[in-house]
Amino acid sequence: MTVGYSLAAATANATTVVRLLLRWHGSVWQLIYRESVVWILLNAFASCIYLFIVKDSSFDDAYKRFLYKMDSLPIEMTLIFLLSFSTSTNLTRWHATFGLLVWPENVAMMFNVHFKDSAVSPNVALRIRRTIVRYLMLAYILLLRDVSSNIRIHWFPTMEKIVECGLLTSQELSLMRSSRMKRTACHYWIPFLWILQIVKKRYRKQNKKASVMTEEGYDQFVEEIISTRGTLGDILSYDWVPLPLALTQTITFFVYCTLFGNIFRLQSRIILQYKTNSHAEAIIVQGISNCFLNVLYIAWLRISQVIVNPFGEDPDDFEAEYLLERHCEVLNTMLCSPQEEVPFAYKKPAED
Amino acid sequence: MTVGYSLAAATANATTVVRLLLRWHGSVWQLIYRESVVWILLNAFASCIYLFIVKDSSFDDAYKRFLYKMDSLPIEMTLIFLLSFSTSTNLTRWHATFGLLVWPENVAMMFNVHFKDSAVSPNVALRIRRTIVRYLMLAYILLLRDVSSNIRIHWFPTMEKIVECGLLTSQELSLMRSSRMKRTACHYWIPFLWILQIVKKRYRKQNKKASVMTEEGYDQFVEEIISTRGTLGDILSYDWVPLPLALTQTITFFVYCTLFGNIFRLQSRIILQYKTNSHAEAIIVQGISNCFLNVLYIAWLRISQVIVNPFGEDPDDFEAEYLLERHCEVLNTMLCSPQEEVPFAYKKPAED
Amino acid sequence: MTVGYSLAAATANATTVVRLLLRWHGSVWQLIYRESVVWILLNAFASCIYLFIVKDSSFDDAYKRFLYKMDSLPIEMTLIFLLSFSTSTNLTRWHATFGLLVWPENVAMMFNVHFKDSAVSPNVALRIRRTIVRYLMLAYILLLRDVSSNIRIHWFPTMEKIVECGLLTSQELSLMRSSRMKRTACHYWIPFLWILQIVKKRYRKQNKKASVMTEEGYDQFVEEIISTRGTLGDILSYDWVPLPLALTQTITFFVYCTLFGNIFRLQSRIILQYKTNSHAEAIIVQGISNCFLNVLYIAWLRISQVIVNPFGEDPDDFEAEYLLERHCEVLNTMLCSPQEEVPFAYKKPAED
Amino acid sequence: MTVGYSLAAATANATTVVRLLLRWHGSVWQLIYRESVVWILLNAFASCIYLFIVKDSSFDDAYKRFLYKMDSLPIEMTLIFLLSFSTSTNLTRWHATFGLLVWPENVAMMFNVHFKDSAVSPNVALRIRRTIVRYLMLAYILLLRDVSSNIRIHWFPTMEKIVECGLLTSQELSLMRSSRMKRTACHYWIPFLWILQIVKKRYRKQNKKASVMTEEGYDQFVEEIISTRGTLGDILSYDWVPLPLALTQTITFFVYCTLFGNIFRLQSRIILQYKTNSHAEAIIVQGISNCFLNVLYIAWLRISQVIVNPFGEDPDDFEAEYLLERHCEVLNTMLCSPQEEVPFAYKKPAED
Amino acid sequence: MTVGYSLAAATANATTVVRLLLRWHGSVWQLIYRESVVWILLNAFASCIYLFIVKDSSFDDAYKRFLYKMDSLPIEMTLIFLLSFSTSTNLTRWHATFGLLVWPENVAMMFNVHFKDSAVSPNVALRIRRTIVRYLMLAYILLLRDVSSNIRIHWFPTMEKIVECGLLTSQELSLMRSSRMKRTACHYWIPFLWILQIVKKRYRKQNKKASVMTEEGYDQFVEEIISTRGTLGDILSYDWVPLPLALTQTITFFVYCTLFGNIFRLQSRIILQYKTNSHAEAIIVQGISNCFLNVLYIAWLRISQVIVNPFGEDPDDFEAEYLLERHCEVLNTMLCSPQEEVPFAYKKPAED
Repeated sequence: MTVGYSLAAATANATTVVRLLLRWHGSVWQLIYRESVVWILLNAFASCIYLFIVKDSSFDDAYKRFLYKMDSLPIEMTLIFLLSFSTSTNLTRWHATFGLLVWPENVAMMFNVHFKDSAVSPNVALRIRRTIVRYLMLAYILLLRDVSSNIRIHWFPTMEKIVECGLLTSQELSLMRSSRMKRTACHYWIPFLWILQIVKKRYRKQNKKASVMTEEGYDQFVEEIISTRGTLGDILSYDWVPLPLALTQTITFFVYCTLFGNIFRLQSRIILQYKTNSHAEAIIVQGISNCFLNVLYIAWLRISQVIVNPFGEDPDDFEAEYLLERHCEVLNTMLCSPQEEVPFAYKKPAED
Repeated sequence: MTVGYSLAAATANATTVVRLLLRWHGSVWQLIYRESVVWILLNAFASCIYLFIVKDSSFDDAYKRFLYKMDSLPIEMTLIFLLSFSTSTNLTRWHATFGLLVWPENVAMMFNVHFKDSAVSPNVALRIRRTIVRYLMLAYILLLRDVSSNIRIHWFPTMEKIVECGLLTSQELSLMRSSRMKRTACHYWIPFLWILQIVKKRYRKQNKKASVMTEEGYDQFVEEIISTRGTLGDILSYDWVPLPLALTQTITFFVYCTLFGNIFRLQSRIILQYKTNSHAEAIIVQGISNCFLNVLYIAWLRISQVIVNPFGEDPDDFEAEYLLERHCEVLNTMLCSPQEEVPFAYKKPAED
Repeated sequence: MTVGYSLAAATANATTVVRLLLRWHGSVWQLIYRESVVWILLNAFASCIYLFIVKDSSFDDAYKRFLYKMDSLPIEMTLIFLLSFSTSTNLTRWHATFGLLVWPENVAMMFNVHFKDSAVSPNVALRIRRTIVRYLMLAYILLLRDVSSNIRIHWFPTMEKIVECGLLTSQELSLMRSSRMKRTACHYWIPFLWILQIVKKRYRKQNKKASVMTEEGYDQFVEEIISTRGTLGDILSYDWVPLPLALTQTITFFVYCTLFGNIFRLQSRIILQYKTNSHAEAIIVQGISNCFLNVLYIAWLRISQVIVNPFGEDPDDFEAEYLLERHCEVLNTMLCSPQEEVPFAYKKPAED
Repeated sequence: MTVGYSLAAATANATTVVRLLLRWHGSVWQLIYRESVVWILLNAFASCIYLFIVKDSSFDDAYKRFLYKMDSLPIEMTLIFLLSFSTSTNLTRWHATFGLLVWPENVAMMFNVHFKDSAVSPNVALRIRRTIVRYLMLAYILLLRDVSSNIRIHWFPTMEKIVECGLLTSQELSLMRSSRMKRTACHYWIPFLWILQIVKKRYRKQNKKASVMTEEGYDQFVEEIISTRGTLGDILSYDWVPLPLALTQTITFFVYCTLFGNIFRLQSRIILQYKTNSHAEAIIVQGISNCFLNVLYIAWLRISQVIVNPFGEDPDDFEAEYLLERHCEVLNTMLCSPQEEVPFAYKKPAED
Repeated sequence: MTVGYSLAAATANATTVVRLLLRWHGSVWQLIYRESVVWILLNAFASCIYLFIVKDSSFDDAYKRFLYKMDSLPIEMTLIFLLSFSTSTNLTRWHATFGLLVWPENVAMMFNVHFKDSAVSPNVALRIRRTIVRYLMLAYILLLRDVSSNIRIHWFPTMEKIVECGLLTSQELSLMRSSRMKRTACHYWIPFLWILQIVKKRYRKQNKKASVMTEEGYDQFVEEIISTRGTLGDILSYDWVPLPLALTQTITFFVYCTLFGNIFRLQSRIILQYKTNSHAEAIIVQGISNCFLNVLYIAWLRISQVIVNPFGEDPDDFEAEYLLERHCEVLNTMLCSPQEEVPFAYKKPAED
């Protein structure tokens, strides 16, 4: 689910900042608490190993030299570079994907403006309008099934499920399946074609009066449908060609290695720098200060992972089911509510 | 309110620079003075604690070791990276949002060019033109209510307020409410639809002379309206899908932690490096030089916070109420002032 | 072949991350295992040379001083900068190229919408439709032969191969060759021209009924064809003007030099820092920790090399042959399946 | 004035580079010589204060400790980050603004192509063409008066000045002033509206032959005019919403502080490192090497300041007056030179 | 000349990489060999001066202190930042310029599709087509003369040269010169205007059959011509407003200063660190390791210089003369080859 906080960030004062930091849902705390706990347990485990096994054994010196070595690797800057590179690349992609997921209002308005209800009987007009709504919803669902795991798994695992929802008749489903395409291919463009063909079959009357759309109106409508289909189709391309897997692997692997290495670095600092202090004090002082940077690295990595696939099931991913509900409501209002009552104030308006 | 300083920066000489630095409204000084004072007080407080409680107590050594540790954390570079990353991401978004908030001149000009006043009586023509202005303003207000806290809270808390302003008749309001959509949904597209339908109802005459728009003119007008609606609609999407909350939280939390940590780092420097000097001198020398960097970090963080939501109430945010006033004035001039007097110099112009 | 992992990255939890890291095909492991092995062997070789030849010889001191010197060169940051610069430049280009490779659905839908089957006999209509499919496929193949080594070498080494596939008649081939252009030039625009001319010859009937496309429909179709050709043509430009060779050379050369230099740096650390330890221990400790960074550099360089030419034969390159198969299937479904059965639910749909 | 050096940089050899470096007009030397001199004088002044006042006084030690402290602040990286961030943000904006300042050739060509001179008498046709030129120039002047301090102050301080130039008749001026808009608002869109209305009034003849533009031609012309107006209007928006003032202030303030601090750092190096040398030698050696970096910082800051407002009066700013002269010349050639002599070679051309 | 290496980089294996590195034409080696030799000679010269003049003289100590000082300047990071900033800015511009240099295929296809040969006699039709080709070529040549030093100097130093090539008749040249524009202004838009006017004069027949273009076809053609002219015109703007000269100067000056300073740094390391070694060994060890970084800086700077003006004469610049030849060939094929033989397979195609 997308997590909105725009209104909460309207003014940038102290209260806002604190309130933003304390949010849980979709927050960085929710993202990292598991990793952080694991990392702390690993730290404790490593400490125990040292204290009860290695210490005072014959490996003690070698172990300490190993820790020394780990501590001097110059990886901070490399890590920061890698993480910003990865996050900014993923973020750019995330935004671009969102921009491609156009909303169907333009198509609906275009239809509304150019469709002449009076050319057919009121019943038929309403039926056409409802079919347009159905087909638009259908196109979105067919597309989202392909990119969003949530829609595919929880909402419409089979095409029959869509028929149950009333968005597809079984006749249409069998027609769709009779096409020569593989079942696994995405058929999201078929409803768009159907929309155009329904209107084409009905509008191409010799008699201009009986036609539901003018020639020019139909052309504009075609333009809009095809540009909408094109933009939605780009989402499939984006899905088909992700960032190179090697890039994602490199960054993930490297950050986890660093975090793992940091366990030994922390050890080394605790063991070696505070020889003269009590062990407890060393652990506290070192633990707190080191945790700080490690939590930052975990947080940054997690953020970059979360936005790799914006149609996934993370809290910050696009809420595909919300979108579908919203589109359904808006399309019904736009196309199927009575069209007659256009308000028009004949009285002198107040601003005169 | 947007803070303009373009003319003040026309030439880049010393006076300009000094004058720019001394501005208060919308300045960085206004942004950071509160944080800076708090930070200085915290510093003083920490010093007092050391001087009167810790010093010469049994915790003195442990405290000093803790300070030493804090001082050696390699976080400067990480901080700078995080802050530039955050600021540049937010700035890109800020600019993109501004680019989406198209001005209504294009729609108005398109209407003006294609509307044939002579097809209806002068009174009706003026009434139509006024209604177009009203609906355009209404669309902007409905949209801005959704994204700008200022417009929603201080200007149009309820729809009735808009009716009072004369931009909406109560008949239109009830029509708007009779739609099936949820009340909380944004209805900004309804006025656009109304504009198109008013013209459509009046222009679709069989008799070409009596029609207020030609077929082609109407199509161009539809194109313009729909593209304007589309761009405005993208603002809603931007508002709906902000930058991942986790990113904002991470950066904010990390910078505040660093600032908090810097209190101890300053302490450590004052206490430990100047053992041989008088304490007063150490405080002055260290305080001044350390304040410098901390103020920079605060300023940078604050700037990045201020531009997260460009429709908020910070001094540098887009001035939605100014925009509305400006649009109202321009639309009235464009559409409702007498259209007859097109100037046209029949005499030989001067440049011959 | 493009390596998809979007669905696998739907949620960002531990299992996903581990599963992603363990993928082999298209992974970073596949990319770097050869280089890494070579680099380790070189390391072993250098160690042997030192141990059996240089050590205790008269060159020992000079060699050690040389190693010292290598160890102190400040190249880490430069390396990271170069690698991120190169990767991000290449990645931008990679994405842009992908965006240019438009899919033919828009053209096909446009044709479908505007083509009036009833104007000609069913057989002729089907033949026209099939010819359109053939020509669209032909345009893609001619283009991809020029940019994708795979298509050129393994799929269509000669034009006769295309004739064999039935996508080109020998009559058309000879016509194509009779043009004045050099054989090596890319003729990808010819099929687009043919598509337009076939329709033009058939549609320009005086009798409106007998025309397969209306005037306006044809114009929209021309627009779509020409914009598609323009976008595809940009791929040729991209191919013709790569990133400056000097840039690629500099980065590659510098990274390999650094990796080579790191062999001596590793040597120096092993030899010089652990004078007091056994040689075996030093090799293990130093080897493991140093390998880490070097593998990262190799991985990063390899990634940047792999995405230089997105139409090459690396696992992460665009899968041109898959694209061709897919386009062929979609175009056939769109254009050549029976067009009559437009579904249209006359019964009240379920969502009422 | 824009400073062109493209031809001088055609080949990148040594001569070119030296010649580019030695340019004065619009050069970095012109930008920084004043600041550099001031900075050197401040340095000398600080040295004198030390030599004649502080040295050997009781403050000597404290002063030296202060200098030591200044020398150890880690600000180099922060400074470089800030400066590249600022310069690249400003440069992006600078380019975008330039891209928005479209040239009027497209509008003029569109008019030329669609205007039918034969529909009116030659005199009237020429008069219409001249009026179009006047109005286009007028639109540019009204716009540039709002954004360019040079045009507003030195060229057209009042609207009457424009009337004097013959680009506006007094009748038109009074019409413009009779509009309801505030005088301070920008009226740049009025001439565009006038252009459209002049043509509309003359072309909307029932008789097709007597019309100066066809329906479709007029529509294309309207499209072009409105898109030009839209792009020019965006310049006003850019001018209205600059980069947040706080950002500019922070960067400027911080760089100047650093430069000021560097005076003490230089001092500290001269005083403390060369205790054993003669003071003169220390000053020379230190002065030269330190100057180098400081001049770089000044240069970078100045560049970023100069490009904040591209319509200002710096040497590198857009040369608004040159643009106006150029547009006037091109528009006159395009629209008002005799249109009859279209060349057309009836003989076989040479390339046969 | 543009240096293509896409096919050579199809797969990223070791052979490819080595082959790419060994290329000479357009390579980094070609770019830097002169500078590198100069730099090495300067180094040798400085060493000689020290060895034979300064050494053992009274200046020895002061010189050594100066060298020490040079060695400690923290400029590596600044240098890397400056160089990446400069290269990436120039590269962005380079790509954008290339994107603006649209190819004339779209215009030619649009003409081909809409031009009705049967409306005029075959001879006249061919003559019109040839004239279109001539004018398109002319527009490109006039434009490229203004931005490409190569075209201006070596190919078409005077307009008469173009007449000699048969691309311009002397009648057209005198017409072009009779316009009121300054001779130095770029007239590249005139041929576009001529193209439109030729068609306009011939197509605007009352009799539809005798017209060479339909109304709608002509409008689409106008659209295409004007958009092509607009894009080409942007190249002139890019040429007119380069990156601020100050930026280029700063970067160039600073890098050369650093390289010059590095001579002394190298000296200092050779002289001071290896006091105990033989001078020869020190020179070898230090020389090799230092050369490495300096060659990188030279290479990077040279690359950034080479791509400042993409129409220059460097190996990596756009090959304007190749473009002209290619366009000429393609346009001739598209427009002047016999148009009748549209292939159309009446037999059942093979894929059935």
